[in-house]
Formats: sequence, C-alpha cells, structure tokens
Amino acid sequence: MQFAGSHILSVNQFQRPDIEGIFSVADRMRPYAHREKVTRVLDGAILGSMFFEPSTRTRVSFGCAFNLLGGQVRETTGFEHSAIAKGESLYDTARVISGYSDVIAMRHPESGSVADFARASRVPVINGGDGANEHPSQALLDLYTIKSEVQGRGGSIDNLRIALIGDLRFGRTVHSLCRLLCLFDDLTVYLISPQELRMPEDIVETMRSAGHKVLETDELEANIAHVDIAYSTRIQEERFDSKEEAATYRGRFRLNQNIYTRHCEPNTVIMHPLPRDSRAGANELDNDLNDNPNLAIFRQADNGVLVRMALFAMILDVVDQVDREARSVSWYIGSRY
Amino acid sequence: MQFAGSHILSVNQFQRPDIEGIFSVADRMRPYAHREKVTRVLDGAILGSMFFEPSTRTRVSFGCAFNLLGGQVRETTGFEHSAIAKGESLYDTARVISGYSDVIAMRHPESGSVADFARASRVPVINGGDGANEHPSQALLDLYTIKSEVQGRGGSIDNLRIALIGDLRFGRTVHSLCRLLCLFDDLTVYLISPQELRMPEDIVETMRSAGHKVLETDELEANIAHVDIAYSTRIQEERFDSKEEAATYRGRFRLNQNIYTRHCEPNTVIMHPLPRDSRAGANELDNDLNDNPNLAIFRQADNGVLVRMALFAMILDVVDQVDREARSVSWYIGSRY
Amino acid sequence: MQFAGSHILSVNQFQRPDIEGIFSVADRMRPYAHREKVTRVLDGAILGSMFFEPSTRTRVSFGCAFNLLGGQVRETTGFEHSAIAKGESLYDTARVISGYSDVIAMRHPESGSVADFARASRVPVINGGDGANEHPSQALLDLYTIKSEVQGRGGSIDNLRIALIGDLRFGRTVHSLCRLLCLFDDLTVYLISPQELRMPEDIVETMRSAGHKVLETDELEANIAHVDIAYSTRIQEERFDSKEEAATYRGRFRLNQNIYTRHCEPNTVIMHPLPRDSRAGANELDNDLNDNPNLAIFRQADNGVLVRMALFAMILDVVDQVDREARSVSWYIGSRY
Repeated sequence: MQFAGSHILSVNQFQRPDIEGIFSVADRMRPYAHREKVTRVLDGAILGSMFFEPSTRTRVSFGCAFNLLGGQVRETTGFEHSAIAKGESLYDTARVISGYSDVIAMRHPESGSVADFARASRVPVINGGDGANEHPSQALLDLYTIKSEVQGRGGSIDNLRIALIGDLRFGRTVHSLCRLLCLFDDLTVYLISPQELRMPEDIVETMRSAGHKVLETDELEANIAHVDIAYSTRIQEERFDSKEEAATYRGRFRLNQNIYTRHCEPNTVIMHPLPRDSRAGANELDNDLNDNPNLAIFRQADNGVLVRMALFAMILDVVDQVDREARSVSWYIGSRY
Repeated sequence: MQFAGSHILSVNQFQRPDIEGIFSVADRMRPYAHREKVTRVLDGAILGSMFFEPSTRTRVSFGCAFNLLGGQVRETTGFEHSAIAKGESLYDTARVISGYSDVIAMRHPESGSVADFARASRVPVINGGDGANEHPSQALLDLYTIKSEVQGRGGSIDNLRIALIGDLRFGRTVHSLCRLLCLFDDLTVYLISPQELRMPEDIVETMRSAGHKVLETDELEANIAHVDIAYSTRIQEERFDSKEEAATYRGRFRLNQNIYTRHCEPNTVIMHPLPRDSRAGANELDNDLNDNPNLAIFRQADNGVLVRMALFAMILDVVDQVDREARSVSWYIGSRY
Repeated sequence: MQFAGSHILSVNQFQRPDIEGIFSVADRMRPYAHREKVTRVLDGAILGSMFFEPSTRTRVSFGCAFNLLGGQVRETTGFEHSAIAKGESLYDTARVISGYSDVIAMRHPESGSVADFARASRVPVINGGDGANEHPSQALLDLYTIKSEVQGRGGSIDNLRIALIGDLRFGRTVHSLCRLLCLFDDLTVYLISPQELRMPEDIVETMRSAGHKVLETDELEANIAHVDIAYSTRIQEERFDSKEEAATYRGRFRLNQNIYTRHCEPNTVIMHPLPRDSRAGANELDNDLNDNPNLAIFRQADNGVLVRMALFAMILDVVDQVDREARSVSWYIGSRY
C-alpha cells in the first residue's frame, strides 16, 4: 500500500511488504524513542487526539510518538459533554477536527465508527480502537515485539510457535494479531481459552487457510510447553453483559514463575497487551514474573512508541527527513533502555 | 482600539477599522493555517486554556491557533473538582493562572465572569464564551466568513442581505454577530424564528438605528428567497428551563437541498455556528446539503483558526514578525483546502 | 544529595546545601519565568504529568515550568476510567509511563503511593502530593518565598519569626515546611490552631530539637504581633470524616486588613498555599487584603514555576545549558512582574 496520506483503519489493509516496511521504519525510530537523538521533523504539525473512550496507555503513546517527531498534540477525551452529545454527527466532527489537525488518532466505542469518521476527514486518521472491532497499531506493535524478541535468538515470525491465552472471544488485540500472522508462513498457534471464550471461528479458519497449524484447547500447562511466545490477555470485562459474568472467567489460565519454570522452554517470551489485572486471584501474569528477563510486556509497551512514530512518519511522508534534522540529546537519560 | 496587551471580551469594543484590521491579519495567517508555511514566532509562549464549561470545537480551535504560531498550550477543563469548587474566587484563579501564561482563553457558564476574571488577570484574556452573554471570536469568524464568501462573487458586507434563522433569543452567536453588523452599511436582515424565540428587542432596535432594514418573521421559505447568506442556528437546549420545552422548537425551520433549490437564489451561502443537530427530525441543516458547494459551515469552522491566530498575534504584538521566521512545510498535506 | 537522575519524593531527602542549591538555580530561572528570555534546553523532552487526584494549580505549574524549559507535556488526570481502575498495579503503570517520558510529576490520594511508583519507574519522579503525606515542591516554593520576601528587607531564614495558622493537623503543606525549617537556625515558630487541629507532636518535637522556639496556641491576634511571616492555611475539608465536621472549623482565625493593621508589625508578610476559601464567613484571608503589598500569596504561586523549573533542570542535569541556548522574548509581556 501507499502510506503517504492514507488512513490506518484495519490490519486487513496490509500485505507482508507493508508490515516489513513499517518495521524497518520503526527500527530507524529507536534512537529517537530511546533519547539518543532528537528530531524536530514535524515541528509545526498538529495531532488531533480524539479519545471518545477512556485510555491512558494508547493515548499517551500516540501523543509521545508525535511529540518525539517534533509535533504538537491537541487532545479531546470522553464525550459525555461533547458536541456529539448535542446531536452532532461523526461526519461533522470529522470535517471540523480535520480542519485543525495534520493527522488524527481516534478511539471510539462503536465498531466501524473510526472508518466512518475517516471517510469525512480531510487528513489521515489512525484507528486507536473502535470497540471490539480493530486496533491496528496494537497488532503491529505486538508483531513487532514478537519479531524483535525472537530475532535476538536467531528466530523469525515464519515458523513461529505461539500460544494465545485467555479471552480470545472479545479481545480485539488477538483478533487483529491473528490476521497479521496470516501474512507469514508455517506457524503453530495454540489457542488456549475457556470454551465460552474461544476465538471466533472465521479467524481460526483464515489461519488454517494460510497454512498455519492451529490447536484449540482449554488446557494451559501442556500447551505452553513448546512455544516461542506465550501471549496472555485480560478478560475484557467491558464487553460482557455483566461484571458477574466476566468475574467467572477471571483468574483462569494464570501464569506465574513456578508454572513457567516447570512447563516452558527456557527462553519462552511472555507477552500481554496490558493492562494486566493485578488484583489478587485475578492476575493473568503473576507479579513474581516481574524479574523474569523473558517477560517482554514492558518492552512491548515501549515498542508502541516506535511503531506509532513509524506510522506517523510514513503517513505524513517524512521518513527520509527524520535523520536529516537530528540533534544529540543533552539531558540526563540514565540507563532506561 | 489598541490590540497589544488588550483583553478581547465583547464585540462592543470594536469599531469598523478594528474589524478590518483583524480580517487583514487573518488573511495573512492563511498560509500557516493551511500548512503552506510554518512560523514559530510564539515559540516559548504559553496559552492558558481555561474551559470551565465543556467545549471541543472552540477549545481545540484556540489551542491549534496558538500551536500554529509556535506556542504551547496548558489546558484546564471542567470545574467540579477545581479550586473554584473549594471556594476559590475567580480573582484568585485569575491572579494565579495569569502568572503561568502569556495569554488566556476562557469559557465560563456565567455572564460577566470572563470580564471579572480579566480584571484580575496580569495577561490578556480572550472571552471564549460566558454563558448567554458573549463569544466575540465566534462573531468575528462568522463575519470573516461572510466577507470571504461574498467577496469571491464581488459582494461585500455593506449592502449584504442576510437571514438569521432559528433560536434568535438564546443564541449568543447571533446576538454578537448582529452587533458587529451594525458597524457596516445598508444591510437587509431577515430574522426568522418562532414567536417565542425572537431576537431581543434592543438588538433589533440597534440594527434599525444603524440604518439596516430588519424584518421579523416566523416564515422560512419566502424569506430566504433573496438573501446572500442564510445563517441557521441550533436550539440552545441548555438555556431552556427543560429539555421538553427545548424539544418543542427543535426541527422547526429545517433547511434541506430541496427547499434550497426551490426557494434560494443559486449562490446563497449557508452558514451555521455548529454543532448542528443531526438527529432525525431535529436537523436544522439536512445532511443532503453536504455536497452543496455553498454550504460554508466547514469553511466557517476553518476560519476560526485564522481569526484566533490573528487575535493572538495582535494581542501579543507579533504580527510583523510572523512571516520573518517562516519555513516551508515538509510533510504530507494532501489537498485539504 | 546528587540531583541528576534522582526522584524528589520527600523534604527529608534534603540537607541545607541542597536547599540552597535549588534556590540558587531557581534564581537563575527568573528571567525565563518572567518572560525576559526564552530557553529551549529541554526541546524534545517529555514530562509525564500523572494527576490521579484533581489539581489545577500544581498541575499547570509543573506543566508550565517544563514548557518554559522547552519540553512537551503529556497529561493524564483522574483515574475513574484508567487502567488502574481495571486492576492495573502502580508498578505496571510506572513501568509503562516511564517508557514514554523523560521525567514524571505525579499526584495520588494515597500516602506512599508516589514512592511506590518511583521504585518501578525508569525515569525520575517528582511527588506532586501523595494524600496527607508529602508535597515537597510546595514546601520548597514556600521556603523560597519566605527567603525572597525577607531578604529584600535584610532578613534571612535563620532567626526568622513565623506564625503558622489554621489546620495544622491535616495540612501536608505546613508539615513539610516545618521539616525544612529544621535545617535552619534559631527560628521562633507560633503554631496557631484550634486545639483539635494542632500540629502533630513529632513535628513539634523535631523543631524543638533543631533549637527553634515553638509556641502552640489557639489565640490569633497576640501571636501574629511580632512575626516576619504570617502563614495561613485552609481547612483541609477532604481529610475530615464529614463536611459538617470540617465546617465547624471554617472561618476561625480569619485575617483581614483591620486585624493586620491593628496587630501586625508594618512589614509582616502574609502567605497561604492556596486555594484560599473566599466564601463569605469562611475566608482565612479576607479579600480586603488584596491591595496590601505584603500579601505575598500570588508571588508565592509565581515562585512555584521557578522552583519547579529548578527541580527539572537539576534532575535532568541541564542547569549549565539553560543560558547557553537563550533568546530574547519578542512578544508583548506588559508589566506582569
């Protein structure tokens, strides 16, 4: 696909070379995200950050990515009191906000709403999550993390063995990730979930059509024994009919250091889209994993900035100018990375 | 008036040369707002954005205007949890916030509150709406839009024929616009509203004293037949005693493409301060007008950035420095304008 | 202490030379805060502003301080809808947000929470208030104000005579200030409060051990007669069991111009951490003091920016670079200072 001027709405718009292109640009963003260098290539540009559903992580990650390229961020969060609550259409909101911004990052609780918004927008729109539907930048940062983690040990996404664990029914994150995995070859995928929260059948079928070996199971320990990646997810409480129903699933498939040591291969990488539930009895990933060097969840969050910087740079067509305006960083950065 | 260091609180502080001066500076801001050039003239300056009443459009428009001049924005929205809720006076808030900022844009639900705040402030304050009272930057952008739209076809604000349609009683936007129109000559003004929502009498009188021909009516179709501008407004639900009372007026005076084609002159410009109500049966301006090239409502919103940039540049006395520091834009801007 | 890369969590981490070092850097920040010069030394750096409890003054003051050094601010306010509400631990939030930011300013309602957060953070954290516990930048700006005010008349913090007035039990501000005062010599401290809201005994003892003369009393007028500083505080309504209980104390120890003239020495400086309660009958400091040149409460708020700029510059180790990149200000600044 051509990135300059395009919306990023769904993982379905990418082919394998697109993914590889994004990851290559993300690699080039690393010195900036890690505060080795400063670029001001987007000095003067404005990101319209429209989060109609609450978000800290994704919202701040988009904002920081844009700031690190030199741009400014104008934020709107919530919509109880907004013009939309006064009856304004997404069409009108999109026409107006796109007049103020150079690019828009948007989250909205309704499936398809960001695509509707993008149709009316005069500037590129990135889907930051539309209900249970899509969250493409999350899928990209997940896949980028997988690549980065296994690459270090001579692996690749092709031939990967991965377990997806938890609420596979409502987790848009794993849905989008599975669609991206279909662009690669010869994977073995373990889908570990309660019967009632299984991966939607069409996604399973698509993965099988792509030539991947897919196993569906509700048994954790045996099925994380031979994987490169164990990707755990949170129960999507907000997608259930009631908190009580969600609670019946919480705390199933808990991974901790003891289970990891007894069952996993030595270098199995642990991932999670975050936030993880840290309440006693509910935690998918126990805090005793925090010192495990294969716990990649915070590197995964860090990678979100790289991938979002890459998307902004490609959409706004400044990839080749990023390094040209670079300076060294002169303030304390310690040993964060 | 002298702009450098002045508050912008009311349209009453302007004479005709002031308006023409603002519009001339707004014209010079166009290449920056349209992303042809970047200026950093206010690099290092801080806008204190204080919206004690929710707002997306006006708040973001002020913020973008300041960012486009190179400045930073520190925002405060809502006031349930603020110091004011703990009993702090507007005087104290103004003294404190004006110590942080170079200029302040403020919205507040109470008439006169922004002027009170400005008296205590140590930096210039722009009224971003104080209840049903004033919203001068909206009136300026409305008039600037009128000028821009009719100018293209050889017209001018003098001799203009304009219809103001809808809730003329509570709409501060049309009140302020009418006051500005009194600075020009020989207008014909059709005031089209339900009997109960007529324009306040003093404003009608002031317009007549200015030499304008003013007609008050509750009949839409005949009275939009010979106008240059049809300016529609939303029912100001929040100013009525009850939602039910407001609802009885919603959906009166709906303009759509069919009515436009049958009744209006070919180039009649359609305006609206936005947000327009797009709920079925309530929409003042039907969505079928969206492809009508004379629907100026989004150009009108865009012009808000120009006018606010002009106000900031004039108040902070940097008009002549804006171009001096300009660079070209190097990122994708597509064909937004 | 070494500042580069350090957290600022408690006043207890400072020795007298640390305080003097901060104040010396704060003095050097004055031309920037007062808009005589612009520095961009932190251009490219990001402040993570995490206010899990509402705040206007402190939040905006931190943000402006960072902007004035050239950095960008990414804000998160409230936490009803945040990841923490979904069960995320402070540890996870800290690991993630510190991956986005160069430094974090944080407020949280629970004592000790900011220190917990800092332990997991990969970048320096400044405590912007953790419940009734600590608010070190407020204590620093208070002490900096005391120094600035008495210095002008040949005084110093050593040998100071100061009255602390109001809710001395729950006011974290006065607790932290008292701890800082222990680093100086030969003070006379009048603690004026209702019996039920007396200063915690351990703090009184610490001050006495430091060699200060401490008087506890519930009588205002006689005890402000011979002080250099009269420091008034608000009833900390949010720390009481009920609003009703808090209300019984509100309006005690009200200082107004008449009392000031009759009882105070001519140049007694009036301070208050703000917000002051301006509701009739409740105001600790009457509005009729607003024209009293010794009312230092707004200079005190202004000093917050200087002190926070100093902390950022020291923590990020750019003190010696601030002036190197300075430019003159070219916009209207009037006579604000």
